[in-house]
Parts: sequence; structure tokens; C-alpha cells
Amino acid sequence: MTSVGIDAIEIWTGNLELDLPNTFAPAQGKDPEYYTKGIGLNASSFPDSYEDIVTMGANAAYRLMERKGLEPADIGRIDVATESSFDKSKPISTYVAGCLEQVYDGDFHHANKGERKFACIAGTQCLDDAYNWIRAGRNRGRAALVIATDTALYERDDPGEATQGAGAVAMLIDEDPAIVELTTDQGYGSADETDFLKPQQQFPSVDGKRSMQVYLARMREALEDYERVAGDSHPDDFAYVPFHTPFPGMVRKAAVLAYRHSIRNTPIEDELAEEIGRQPRREAFDDEEAYEEAVREYMDALKETDLYQEWYATTIEPTLSISREVGNWYTGSVHVARTSALKHALENDIDLVGETLGVGSYGSGAQAEVHGEVVVEGWRDEVAAIDIDDQLDARRSITFEEYESIHDAHNHDKDVEPAEITTPENEFVFDGWGRMGERTYRFVE
Amino acid sequence: MTSVGIDAIEIWTGNLELDLPNTFAPAQGKDPEYYTKGIGLNASSFPDSYEDIVTMGANAAYRLMERKGLEPADIGRIDVATESSFDKSKPISTYVAGCLEQVYDGDFHHANKGERKFACIAGTQCLDDAYNWIRAGRNRGRAALVIATDTALYERDDPGEATQGAGAVAMLIDEDPAIVELTTDQGYGSADETDFLKPQQQFPSVDGKRSMQVYLARMREALEDYERVAGDSHPDDFAYVPFHTPFPGMVRKAAVLAYRHSIRNTPIEDELAEEIGRQPRREAFDDEEAYEEAVREYMDALKETDLYQEWYATTIEPTLSISREVGNWYTGSVHVARTSALKHALENDIDLVGETLGVGSYGSGAQAEVHGEVVVEGWRDEVAAIDIDDQLDARRSITFEEYESIHDAHNHDKDVEPAEITTPENEFVFDGWGRMGERTYRFVE
Repeated sequence: MTSVGIDAIEIWTGNLELDLPNTFAPAQGKDPEYYTKGIGLNASSFPDSYEDIVTMGANAAYRLMERKGLEPADIGRIDVATESSFDKSKPISTYVAGCLEQVYDGDFHHANKGERKFACIAGTQCLDDAYNWIRAGRNRGRAALVIATDTALYERDDPGEATQGAGAVAMLIDEDPAIVELTTDQGYGSADETDFLKPQQQFPSVDGKRSMQVYLARMREALEDYERVAGDSHPDDFAYVPFHTPFPGMVRKAAVLAYRHSIRNTPIEDELAEEIGRQPRREAFDDEEAYEEAVREYMDALKETDLYQEWYATTIEPTLSISREVGNWYTGSVHVARTSALKHALENDIDLVGETLGVGSYGSGAQAEVHGEVVVEGWRDEVAAIDIDDQLDARRSITFEEYESIHDAHNHDKDVEPAEITTPENEFVFDGWGRMGERTYRFVE
Repeated sequence: MTSVGIDAIEIWTGNLELDLPNTFAPAQGKDPEYYTKGIGLNASSFPDSYEDIVTMGANAAYRLMERKGLEPADIGRIDVATESSFDKSKPISTYVAGCLEQVYDGDFHHANKGERKFACIAGTQCLDDAYNWIRAGRNRGRAALVIATDTALYERDDPGEATQGAGAVAMLIDEDPAIVELTTDQGYGSADETDFLKPQQQFPSVDGKRSMQVYLARMREALEDYERVAGDSHPDDFAYVPFHTPFPGMVRKAAVLAYRHSIRNTPIEDELAEEIGRQPRREAFDDEEAYEEAVREYMDALKETDLYQEWYATTIEPTLSISREVGNWYTGSVHVARTSALKHALENDIDLVGETLGVGSYGSGAQAEVHGEVVVEGWRDEVAAIDIDDQLDARRSITFEEYESIHDAHNHDKDVEPAEITTPENEFVFDGWGRMGERTYRFVE
């Protein structure tokens, strides 16, 4: 059976940078370490006034197509994942295709375009749809373009303001991929939850505490469901575990939960038992609350052990490096985490071919998915071609006053003249409003 | 290879009926035949104040699960297609699952839930995703539930007001299906078009004339692309051709276009040549406009021929019977058209096993898809179990004043107390607002 998976990745960051400890913290009257240590973020990527989910998605896709030497005829499917959409009917993929058609001779009229919505997990769902489409033998030799694009902005002074971000990840899904092969090992944890909503409004309503609980509960279910297909998991199964990263602090919580689950009934649990005891077993407790309290205590002890800290440093920490500099990209975040890990391996000359990544995606509302993907020959060249470091360096760092004005420029409830802070170059930009009030775009040389 | 396709269909209509020639026409000062002959509609299904896309989708799904004796454990995937969503982040499928979990012992925590958006074509895209998921071997023995649900309401006095509708179609996609087997014969016609938008607003902005042109242009492309896979089409290939039906008048235009395309270079064209001449060929014209004018003239003559009218009466007219009584259901409409055709065959004792349906889906924005599906043994029992006729008879016919008040009740910009016109029974209903302002639901015995 031909392998199917991710053949190329491109990342496009918003062109502005908000420095959290040095610019945002003083203006908010907060300790800088609240951001850098607590939440785990150094900076947010922020969109300039000519950027939006279409420009960022189209720019990532264009870069990907150019680098891979692709023409529109090579692409049979364009799916966009977003929770920042501006129309209930017309999908963002049509706008992205319209942008790309400005710079290519060919067109995408043959390509099935779509849009998926499920908070931050929709990008992974698009990846799965593309994989299934190829496996079903319907791709007619063509590849799929999956684009996860969001502007994750919050109301001013909302707790989420500290975790903002904006950017897009474009991925090419194809036969004989050059980065990772997807597998059928996947599990789900999904329930009707109310933790994050965007009802008829631009900025989200968030129950932050509930959202963190739901993330952990659904992720545990997804891991259990994954094990029904793939067999019991073990911390050594995965070279890296990229999680959905709303902010690195959330991943710290998810990682210890996954580790505890995976070491149960393994020699690792035995080895740790002398230091912190064995894991509490539900059947040993009369009362659910007492059991959960015992689990919390075990996890608090677990995360201080050398064994855990070594696993975390090797398997989780490398997935967070880009996230720390860009903030939350919603649908793109878990794919940014995968990229961080692969870059870390490249830069540290770690041989990954044949190694498995355990990818933990999550969307509020709520659903988690855990799947395995296997790194394949070719990953080094593909990952080396991702120029995210240059992009991060090239961002314009904004003052707090510029931040205030650019937040207003992106606020649909405010009628302000959008002032550009940077000058676009070699990229698609928002170009004003069309005949029916639709957003229009053009390519700037 | 195991066959995969539609194993069961259930339809849920809004509980109210607006009589277009007898109630709406006099109030609008219009000739009743403007509706019945011009647009082709007798009535609109309308949602009572306790109905919305969640209740209609959940009610269709519940009826389907009950009739087929399914439990939540049998369902591995729930995808909802809609362009009437009320949240940019949380998908309608989570609400539907939440409803169903109120009436089943089991839960859907293992099920991958999603939402697709691309105007009216998203239901067909969900069908494809479900097919591909099973073909890719990832369904773990479970079936997929695809739900197309919309309240297609327009601003008062918008031309679209005459085509309104509300309802849901639930389909079970499974191995060894009992209604139709899906094939890999499919073609796309897709372009970045601005004909129908819902930007930050409840009711659509529509360029009706442009939308009809785009429908036809994309459908022609999709048919040509279909032929690249399936070979040249011929009118005799298909027992029925269910098109997306915003209103039957639109399908009249699409049908003659498809017929003209399909008879080219066939004995049918030769046979008709004596009466109306041969089709204009582009290469015989210097100028595109003159060619298109000649094509229009040919089509005007073609639709008056006995051969065409017989094909239309046999292949297209039977797809329109439910649509005439319910109006536009957006994502559900093409699936209502398929059901109409199957009911017609059942009622007229037509043997369909092994026959192909040519399904023409469309979504503004814009994309058409044409695919073939083959009717399989079992279709009679499944179609006989669909009780849409009883549902249509049971609708409460509303006065114009009731129509005005219920339109206001569904208008997010108006703050009116929703007055129920009918009394719900054995169905899910909207039950007010939750802790975070989310919509909540309950089952009424």
C-alpha cells in the first residue's frame, strides 16, 4: 500500500510582533514572568492591518507551491480550517484559490474546495479528510492542500489577550510523502461541552478554567481510544508528542497526564514507585473525589521526578519553541508544534526516520484526537526549507500604542481607518471591498 | 471491494407551512402563478419558534437511529453541513450529539464530529468524506451520520423570500448500503465567485441573476470533469438526475444544459437535427458572444422537442416533487431531490436496482459536483420507510400574520418573545439559553 501523509509544510506568521514581557507586561501592570514562565509565551504574532486569514493562508500556500514547483493542475483539493471565518456560506478556500489564480496561469476549477469548523481541531480533521480521499482512490494523481489559518484575537483585557496570535500553516498531503506518513492509529474523545463560543460575534467568550479541564478530560479519552487501535502506549513509543498549544502552560498539564497514563503497569511505574509510590487505582477508592485527589497528588510528585523531567525535556519541550514566539494560532497550533519538534531534531542532528510522532489535537466544544504518524526519508530537506526563523526575525516589534491601534483596526465593531505599520512585499494583501461588500485581495510585488 | 454508500435516509421538515399561491401571493400582491409556475413552488416549510438547525438535525438523526435500531456505539462519525450556523467555533454536530445523548444510554464520545461549510454543496462534501473514511479503512466497523440542516430564511421583501424553506436530511453512510452505492465517478467545477454571501449577518446578500449564471457555468464544468473520469455521458446513463434545487425553475435551466451537453455527437443529436438543426460548435464562430447566442437559441428550441420533454418528464420532474412543497433547504436540497426520485420510482413500481443516479450538487461561492451512484437491493424498503408525505400533511398551515410573527421570532436582530404556533411532540426543541449564552435543547415526549 502506497504511503500517504504530509509531503511539505509552510508556515506564515503575522507580520507584527507584540513583546509580552517587555511591552505588554508593563502596560498591563503585570510581572513579566506571568507571561514567560506562567503562560510560557515570549511574544505574540499579530496581523498588520492588511493581513487576515485569507492573506496568511494564501501566502503560506503560495510559498509551498513555489518551493515544491507545483501548478494548480497538481492540486485536487483545497481545505481550509478556521474559527475566524467572516462568512457563513462562502468558504475561505475559494478566496485562497482566487488569490493563487492571480499569480498562476492555470486555475483551480477542478479542485474540490471546502472549509471545516471545529475550534482548533479542524486542521487535523482536514488532514484526515485529505488522507482518506487519497486512500479511497479518488485523488486522480493529485495532492491536497490543507490550510489552517486563524487570527486568534480576544477582547481587550480578556484573560485570553495574553495568549493571542495570528498565522497560517499550509500542508501538502500526497502519496509517498517526504515528511511523515499518516497511519490508521487514531483515537477520539469528544463531548458536547460549552467552554469556548463565538456566537454572532468576533471575539470569543471563554470559560478558561473549564476549557482547561475539558482539554484534559477529552485528551485522556482520546488516548484511551487510541490504545484500542494501537495497543497500550508507552512513553518510549513516541519521539515527540506535539499537542495543541493554546499556550505552553496548557501542554505542561497535558503532558504529565499522558505520561502518567502511559507508564501505568510498565517498568517505569515500578521504577518510580520507590520514590513516589504507585499510581492510585480507582478500585482502591470508595469515593471518586478521593481517587481524583490522590491522582492529583501523584501527578504533582511525578512531574518532579528525574525520569519525567527527562522525558518532558526530550519529547515535549522541543514542540514548544515556535509557539513561545507566536502565541495561539488556533487551528494551526498543533501543526506548529509538530514543526517545532522536527526543527529541533534537524538542528540537533537526531535521526528520526521510522520514528513515530504522537500528535494530540484538541478543539473546544469539545474534541481531542490522538494519532500516530511515522517520519519518513526526506524529512530533513523539507524541514530545512521551512524559513520560520527568518520570518520571526523579520517581524516588526510594535509599541503598546501601535498594539492598541492595530487591535482596533481588526475589531469589526470599530470603524477606524486601518493604518499599515509595515510595508507588504511579495505577498497577498487585503485590498478593500467589492461590489457585494466582499473582501478583495491582490498580490503586492 | 465492499460497497459503500447511503444505507438510510430520514427527512425532517419544519413544522409550519406557508402556502405560497393562496397565502403569500395575495399579501405580496403577486400573481399566484409567479410562485407555482415561475419559481415552481407551492409551499415553504417553515420552522416554529422552538425549531432550529439543531432540533431539525437531531430529530432527523433520532428517527433514523430508531428505525435502524442503532445505538451510539454504532456511529463513528457525525458530520453536519450547514450555512445557518450560529457559532464560528463550536460545530452543530456537538449539539446534535448532546441532544441524542439525552435519549440514549450510550454516548458519542468515541465519534469524530465535524462541520462543513460551502453553501449548499457541503452536504455532498460530508457524504464524500464519510465514504472516503470508510474506504480508507478507518471506520472500525462503524457507520457515519451525515446531517444537512438549514433554515433558509431571507430578509422580508428580498426576492429570495419566495424560495424560503427549513428542514434537515440525515443519511447513514455504511458498508453494504441498502439504498445507493457511491462510486469514484465524480467531477468538479469550482471558482472564486461572489453571488451569495452571509458576512457577519443572519440573512444572505444575494445577486440572484449572477447566482443562476454561476450555477450553470460551474455545473457545465463539473459535468465535463465527470466525463474525464466516467467517459462521455449520455442521457440514457441516468435513471434520474437529482440537482441541487434552490427552486424548481433553476433545475429547468440546469437540465436543458446538461441534456444538450450529453447528446452532443450522439444519435440523439442526429435525430433532433432535422427538427432543430445541429448544436452550434465553438470552432464555427469567430466570436464567443455569437456562439453563446447560438447556443441559447439551440437550447430554446431543444426544450420544446418531444425527445427532450420526454427525458425531462422521466428523469428530472420526479426529483422535484418534495421541493415544490418545502422550498429551499440549502444543504439538504439535493438530498431531498434524490429522495423525491426514489419515492417516485417506488410509487410507480419502477425497478431501479443497478440503475445509476447522476447527482448534481451546487454551492454558491461557487462549486458544482457531479457524481454517479448506483441503486442497490434494499432500496424499496428503505424508501418506503421515509414518512415525508405524512410530515408534509401534518404541517400547520400558517396565516400571513403568523408568518410575519414567526419570521420576526427567527430574526436575530429583533428582540421578540417567541410564540409557539404548534405544540411539539416526540421531538427535540430549543429550550433557552445556558450559562455562557449557549443554546440549550431538550426532548419533549
